Amino acid sequence: MHEQKIKKLMQNLKSSKIGVDDAVKELKFLPFEDLGFARLDHHREIRLGVPEIVLGEGKTLEQLVPIVRRMTDKSRTVIVSRLDREKGAHLTKEFPGGEYHEKARLFSLRREPEERNSPGILFILAAGTSDIPVAEEAAITARLLGHDVRRLYDCGVAGLHRLLPEIPRIREASVLIVVAGMEGALPSVVAGLVGRPIIAVPTSVGYGMSLSGVTPLLAMLNSCVPGVTVVNIDNGVGAAVAAHLITRA
Amino acid sequence: MHEQKIKKLMQNLKSSKIGVDDAVKELKFLPFEDLGFARLDHHREIRLGVPEIVLGEGKTLEQLVPIVRRMTDKSRTVIVSRLDREKGAHLTKEFPGGEYHEKARLFSLRREPEERNSPGILFILAAGTSDIPVAEEAAITARLLGHDVRRLYDCGVAGLHRLLPEIPRIREASVLIVVAGMEGALPSVVAGLVGRPIIAVPTSVGYGMSLSGVTPLLAMLNSCVPGVTVVNIDNGVGAAVAAHLITRA
Amino acid sequence: MHEQKIKKLMQNLKSSKIGVDDAVKELKFLPFEDLGFARLDHHREIRLGVPEIVLGEGKTLEQLVPIVRRMTDKSRTVIVSRLDREKGAHLTKEFPGGEYHEKARLFSLRREPEERNSPGILFILAAGTSDIPVAEEAAITARLLGHDVRRLYDCGVAGLHRLLPEIPRIREASVLIVVAGMEGALPSVVAGLVGRPIIAVPTSVGYGMSLSGVTPLLAMLNSCVPGVTVVNIDNGVGAAVAAHLITRA
Amino acid sequence: MHEQKIKKLMQNLKSSKIGVDDAVKELKFLPFEDLGFARLDHHREIRLGVPEIVLGEGKTLEQLVPIVRRMTDKSRTVIVSRLDREKGAHLTKEFPGGEYHEKARLFSLRREPEERNSPGILFILAAGTSDIPVAEEAAITARLLGHDVRRLYDCGVAGLHRLLPEIPRIREASVLIVVAGMEGALPSVVAGLVGRPIIAVPTSVGYGMSLSGVTPLLAMLNSCVPGVTVVNIDNGVGAAVAAHLITRA
Amino acid sequence: MHEQKIKKLMQNLKSSKIGVDDAVKELKFLPFEDLGFARLDHHREIRLGVPEIVLGEGKTLEQLVPIVRRMTDKSRTVIVSRLDREKGAHLTKEFPGGEYHEKARLFSLRREPEERNSPGILFILAAGTSDIPVAEEAAITARLLGHDVRRLYDCGVAGLHRLLPEIPRIREASVLIVVAGMEGALPSVVAGLVGRPIIAVPTSVGYGMSLSGVTPLLAMLNSCVPGVTVVNIDNGVGAAVAAHLITRA
Amino acid sequence: MHEQKIKKLMQNLKSSKIGVDDAVKELKFLPFEDLGFARLDHHREIRLGVPEIVLGEGKTLEQLVPIVRRMTDKSRTVIVSRLDREKGAHLTKEFPGGEYHEKARLFSLRREPEERNSPGILFILAAGTSDIPVAEEAAITARLLGHDVRRLYDCGVAGLHRLLPEIPRIREASVLIVVAGMEGALPSVVAGLVGRPIIAVPTSVGYGMSLSGVTPLLAMLNSCVPGVTVVNIDNGVGAAVAAHLITRA
Amino acid sequence: MHEQKIKKLMQNLKSSKIGVDDAVKELKFLPFEDLGFARLDHHREIRLGVPEIVLGEGKTLEQLVPIVRRMTDKSRTVIVSRLDREKGAHLTKEFPGGEYHEKARLFSLRREPEERNSPGILFILAAGTSDIPVAEEAAITARLLGHDVRRLYDCGVAGLHRLLPEIPRIREASVLIVVAGMEGALPSVVAGLVGRPIIAVPTSVGYGMSLSGVTPLLAMLNSCVPGVTVVNIDNGVGAAVAAHLITRA
Amino acid sequence: MHEQKIKKLMQNLKSSKIGVDDAVKELKFLPFEDLGFARLDHHREIRLGVPEIVLGEGKTLEQLVPIVRRMTDKSRTVIVSRLDREKGAHLTKEFPGGEYHEKARLFSLRREPEERNSPGILFILAAGTSDIPVAEEAAITARLLGHDVRRLYDCGVAGLHRLLPEIPRIREASVLIVVAGMEGALPSVVAGLVGRPIIAVPTSVGYGMSLSGVTPLLAMLNSCVPGVTVVNIDNGVGAAVAAHLITRA
Repeated sequence: MHEQKIKKLMQNLKSSKIGVDDAVKELKFLPFEDLGFARLDHHREIRLGVPEIVLGEGKTLEQLVPIVRRMTDKSRTVIVSRLDREKGAHLTKEFPGGEYHEKARLFSLRREPEERNSPGILFILAAGTSDIPVAEEAAITARLLGHDVRRLYDCGVAGLHRLLPEIPRIREASVLIVVAGMEGALPSVVAGLVGRPIIAVPTSVGYGMSLSGVTPLLAMLNSCVPGVTVVNIDNGVGAAVAAHLITRA
Repeated sequence: MHEQKIKKLMQNLKSSKIGVDDAVKELKFLPFEDLGFARLDHHREIRLGVPEIVLGEGKTLEQLVPIVRRMTDKSRTVIVSRLDREKGAHLTKEFPGGEYHEKARLFSLRREPEERNSPGILFILAAGTSDIPVAEEAAITARLLGHDVRRLYDCGVAGLHRLLPEIPRIREASVLIVVAGMEGALPSVVAGLVGRPIIAVPTSVGYGMSLSGVTPLLAMLNSCVPGVTVVNIDNGVGAAVAAHLITRA
Repeated sequence: MHEQKIKKLMQNLKSSKIGVDDAVKELKFLPFEDLGFARLDHHREIRLGVPEIVLGEGKTLEQLVPIVRRMTDKSRTVIVSRLDREKGAHLTKEFPGGEYHEKARLFSLRREPEERNSPGILFILAAGTSDIPVAEEAAITARLLGHDVRRLYDCGVAGLHRLLPEIPRIREASVLIVVAGMEGALPSVVAGLVGRPIIAVPTSVGYGMSLSGVTPLLAMLNSCVPGVTVVNIDNGVGAAVAAHLITRA
Repeated sequence: MHEQKIKKLMQNLKSSKIGVDDAVKELKFLPFEDLGFARLDHHREIRLGVPEIVLGEGKTLEQLVPIVRRMTDKSRTVIVSRLDREKGAHLTKEFPGGEYHEKARLFSLRREPEERNSPGILFILAAGTSDIPVAEEAAITARLLGHDVRRLYDCGVAGLHRLLPEIPRIREASVLIVVAGMEGALPSVVAGLVGRPIIAVPTSVGYGMSLSGVTPLLAMLNSCVPGVTVVNIDNGVGAAVAAHLITRA
Repeated sequence: MHEQKIKKLMQNLKSSKIGVDDAVKELKFLPFEDLGFARLDHHREIRLGVPEIVLGEGKTLEQLVPIVRRMTDKSRTVIVSRLDREKGAHLTKEFPGGEYHEKARLFSLRREPEERNSPGILFILAAGTSDIPVAEEAAITARLLGHDVRRLYDCGVAGLHRLLPEIPRIREASVLIVVAGMEGALPSVVAGLVGRPIIAVPTSVGYGMSLSGVTPLLAMLNSCVPGVTVVNIDNGVGAAVAAHLITRA
Repeated sequence: MHEQKIKKLMQNLKSSKIGVDDAVKELKFLPFEDLGFARLDHHREIRLGVPEIVLGEGKTLEQLVPIVRRMTDKSRTVIVSRLDREKGAHLTKEFPGGEYHEKARLFSLRREPEERNSPGILFILAAGTSDIPVAEEAAITARLLGHDVRRLYDCGVAGLHRLLPEIPRIREASVLIVVAGMEGALPSVVAGLVGRPIIAVPTSVGYGMSLSGVTPLLAMLNSCVPGVTVVNIDNGVGAAVAAHLITRA
Repeated sequence: MHEQKIKKLMQNLKSSKIGVDDAVKELKFLPFEDLGFARLDHHREIRLGVPEIVLGEGKTLEQLVPIVRRMTDKSRTVIVSRLDREKGAHLTKEFPGGEYHEKARLFSLRREPEERNSPGILFILAAGTSDIPVAEEAAITARLLGHDVRRLYDCGVAGLHRLLPEIPRIREASVLIVVAGMEGALPSVVAGLVGRPIIAVPTSVGYGMSLSGVTPLLAMLNSCVPGVTVVNIDNGVGAAVAAHLITRA
Repeated sequence: MHEQKIKKLMQNLKSSKIGVDDAVKELKFLPFEDLGFARLDHHREIRLGVPEIVLGEGKTLEQLVPIVRRMTDKSRTVIVSRLDREKGAHLTKEFPGGEYHEKARLFSLRREPEERNSPGILFILAAGTSDIPVAEEAAITARLLGHDVRRLYDCGVAGLHRLLPEIPRIREASVLIVVAGMEGALPSVVAGLVGRPIIAVPTSVGYGMSLSGVTPLLAMLNSCVPGVTVVNIDNGVGAAVAAHLITRA
């Protein structure tokens, strides 16, 4: 229907019933639906520089296999996050070249060999050993996006003696992801010592009033050091993508 | 920039370098930003049939007066909600023909005399006398949108003897707005007796565990009668607009 | 007891001890309990036009089978929602003609062939693939209630390029159900583009601060577009019934 | 140690070193710990008229069997609540004469035959079929405490036609327990019609914003009819004991 | 309309077209709306034995004066709760014989001299001095309803030495209202010592994690002594009415 | 009444009707109420070593003056907390020798000159300048209880360079009170460096997701260093009393 | 004390009692407190490139004036945020060259003329007019930190037609701050269209279930587009500092 | 790098290019990173007197075995908390001399025989039998830290007659741990009777509005007796460590 209207306009232009300027002007002021048929944004992933990342949790293998297959056609890097070991094994068997990262609970498949395409260093800190899965989700995702990832784990505020000596090394990073559960204090402490963008990731590790990660999230949002930004609980993928966008900025 | 690209396309068409079909196809697949200059939707309010309604709360008179002035140019009906008496008096003086509805805490200005333009009846019920301001916000808004509004106030579930005899009359409505605070039970009771669309509006009236309206909101969302829908606490305007869209559907 | 009182009144009337007007007046002012024996509302379902829908969750097969049997006697359409696959299979075997809709987790049984009895189009949108079960619960319920249901899934706000081209088609709907988890933004975006009644359904899909659906629910209640109404988390049945009442209004 | 002090005082009295009035006065002003050895309240259960009721949930059979055994020595009635079927079967085998009430998830053992020892009628209402287990917990407990229990189930506010005709009968009760989930409106409606003490029991049945019973609890606490009192979610035992204390008052 | 139908029925009966039994039967099965005109329950207050109590909070004097006037016509006792001192003074001047109870923030007006009409004793305990306003709201309301009210204030669990010596006296009560803020422990302690119905009233006194009364409310709902029932935060009126219904039960 | 019973027992003993052992045994097994008249604990404050501290907030001067007067009779130290400047001035005028501590919002009155009666050092840390009022409430209270109080303010985790050099000095403390708002991380950091009892006090300073102190409270409860204990938000008095009890332990 | 130890070590080195390597090694392994006197980080602000920003809210002028004076000595840029107009006027009078930004509620004082020192463009979007104060707090702060700030206000998701045409222009930004209240959907929509780092700022504007900004915060944390990061409610300053760190990364 | 700088300084000192005072001064003002190599705190556990305690929950045996092995090398006492029976059995087999404490769900391994090294008595009270696991976690941990632990279980406020006679004995403690679920009132009652430091531990036992331990936690934070301090829900280990630090203070 709308196509007809546009066609008519084109024909009028072609047959010189109207001039170029008028045609452009008319197009410009067409109400939205008349442009609705346009395929607005075919290449989003390529232009944004971030492949679509599939949330594996809650999806069956019947759903995951065709999704991964379709993605391999259009994307150089396929990532499925929050995937249990069993499904990871299945995908690895189904897709030769795929890899299941157990700690990170993440499946990946690359059409081309991994290569570093980001200039700076991405430092990932984790406060405790139980925060490592989330940190690894961020680390693997970031590496797949082409980053030089460095890790410093088990450096929570209970043991500043483990953290402080590493500060000079951490300062070489261009962006930091800081993962913490419990009282979620690590991002504040690091932000007070290192003048770099810090993406804080609360984890759901803990019990009682950790409230499945709400406590570290709240703490991070109230950091006394301005400039700390926060992502959802356990959202390692989101932190990695944010870091990726920052280093590309 | 993008305008240039489109212009070029038009010129190619005009000079027959390409045909009409090709031009249409190319337009169709232009990435989004190339169409960005289009004024997508100039007449939203007219087409949607709902004038923009200004939230008066938290706006100064210095902000409100020019906003109202600008709106009178493009809209037949101007509505400013959640407006205190003092500001209402000011606007009424500033804009001849404007009216301040004290109970509803709402200012309105119509270019043309009010007229009923909706076929059915809109029934507005309020559980208690303290729910009346929210009910009136809905009632006045609905009347300004052209509805035949009927009111039944102070008919909460504590006194079914006041509600039940009115049920036959209520059944003549084509849509109902049911306003209630405290335990928010009225919409469920009405929905069990009247087979009409019911928009439930919780109010912030109460103390202690009424939690400023969270309790009636939760109750309404858990209505044991399927089909009740809910709007935000104290949101009389939203309920009126929803009712308006329903009767137009 | 009360029956005696009424009987007495009738006898007095019959024997002309009192007149008709007095009898009516006396009936009118009888305290409530004297009328208590009246079978007030035998045919609620038929009159309201909505069959009772059984919540299957938390019911055993021992409870479900007789409930379904009883309902088949008085209702043309039997619907059992939130039913797992195993119980669905059992009911299908038990009741010939019954059907288990797996995606929707819903069992249905119709005495007569399905027929479309509602004039308009009901459009159901789902933001993500994981919102589909809730959307399907709404879709199947609506179809069983006689609606012409159209679906548009996986059109969340992350990819406006998938949603915008469909807007003209969506505008043909007489009512919309918009299902979304995560940040629950889809209903607002659609409501800004389409002047139709929109019933928003939050889903419990997500993790961390999605708070099992509380986040999209809150977002939908705070839609910046007035007129969006909301039902409980995952409440596809409620949305379908609300849409049904609207199209019948 | 303290016993020595008292003994010394007694000896002084006996040997007339001090008089009776002085001895009483001295006893009166002894600091608290000097009276600490007193067995203050040996017969609490008998005097309060309420046997101790054991919360079965979270206790192993190794813990439950000796507890029940010990209780049978001092109490005419033993009640274990929130007990699953398997443990119930075990206790029934272990203690001849014991009974497992499946719907109520409650084990009981009486030394003497049950007898009605309370003058009035205890009416128990349940809004929906899924509220029955909690209602039965209250009903069985109340019967074991000697009450004449009457039940009215599945009479929620969605179907006033099922509730209203029963009002005259309900008014004969001396106390009511009203059990409801979802929007928890039934206690308010009943309280508006029946001038009796009403103990409202919210249930955890539901999904989404029922918040596992928080919603009906909040609704009941905000009843627009003053005089409704509330117990914890699913707390049928507590409601029965409250009703028991009321009828004894 | 419906009146017509009934009239017709009466006339048929009177003219012996139908018999008495048939008339009764027909009345019985009339659908609800045909009885809608009946004034179901004219004398609710008298029969329930509880006068309507007006929530003064949030009402203007322009609203309160006519409400009180109207109530004096039909009720022996008028009570307006949660009323500030200024409005109280105004009502006292407006209505001779009216009284403003400052501590209780309550206005009352009785047509007849107060008299005790309830057999037992109502004991009201308050944990701290700051809980007294709520306790007084309950006390004054109960006295106006005809109760013999006894008070014991400032007897919180921090000083058992003040509470324990009063237990024998408290045991003479037929019902107790126990008011407490902070950790809300007093009702549990009292319930463990006194076998009487206990209505617990949480107060909003406190700061920080008292959460304006949510903490004592939660504590009271989780009392380890079964049988404690709870009303809304600061709801002295509700507690008094509940106690009133209990003593009348 | 009960006094009579005891008197009788004493007389029987005196007249050798019973022996000493029997008298003691009988006393021992008297039910609780028979001992109810005993003034159990006249000297609680003296024995516990903590004077009663009055919460000034929400009390009128009419209430405060007599309370303070009565306390001066039985207590060496009178403390009124959470008191505004105006009331503080009034009390200072009313009670010569009294002192109003403005930062701490606390009034005190000592019968004897202050003296240090606690062996160790009490260190009070405050994260930010806005936490100082709460820290001062703790500091003044502790000094009044006889402690050697040292302060270190504005040493939050954003500036470890201000905190770390003080650690050796802090380690000399026998107990620490650590006051913090925002993300509440200071107690964890200090606890990781100093092996002393740490009482963490969250403050209500902040905005947005500080949730009036809930965030630092939650963070402190989830400290990754075991051994940190927590008091209510802004509860400087409670922290000081806890520290006092600890040093006396 | 510790200084003595170090001094001794230096003297031993100087007098050749130990060699250089041994001295370094010994320094290296000194327990922390022996280094405690070191002034660790005198120039934090200069090195981090972010001047300390004072939270004006809750501080008196008596506190603010000396704080600002002290800061002017060591910092090129002084910023006081969340400052009301009256205090702003006072500071402007007190400090010549200071400026009060009314919309942003922010006072600033620069020793040197403002200059742009950041290469990219910082785009600040605000969904509604009531979100402008927070957006301005971010904008002014960013400009003071040397950024080229561009603004796009009132472009919420209710009116995509106002946002979409600006997308090409927005894509030129190197980092975006997106401010929104209500349902907080704008960051997700923008993130789906623009591959740049996005800092989302929820605002406390709204009523009812906006929960003073909690709703948009939750929505932003659950953005269906990975890579969005979030700061505290109304935290314009924090967003500006984060953007500043990003562009410097 | 930084080591070079220090080395240079040492050499300058040694070669008398600078004097001792200048060297010390220079060291003192080195920015933080130049000291970064220092091993700040090698012996934290030994100095703090508290061995690191491993949270067993959520760790696999593959993780736990090497952790325990490494800890046995540097710590006299190894404790793994929140460990299920199966893993406990495995560790006991793997590490001869290790012990699994079933009630406490805790594994321990000591290199030397347990010995009492703390002067006072640690009293642990538990309100109900279901609070015993948490109380035992505290008790076993405290015993492993060298304390003389006394237990008093099942002494909740519902039965003061069980608690009060024990008060004299409890007063001999130097510190108390009070464990309670449900309404969490026990710490307040004990604190009113015993002038000792009290560490309150809420437990997650209960249902409905116990909110998995949030209710007793809130109650404990609002204790009307100042001086009660609180740890996280179910945190027996934290309470034991706090008690340990107190007795060592």
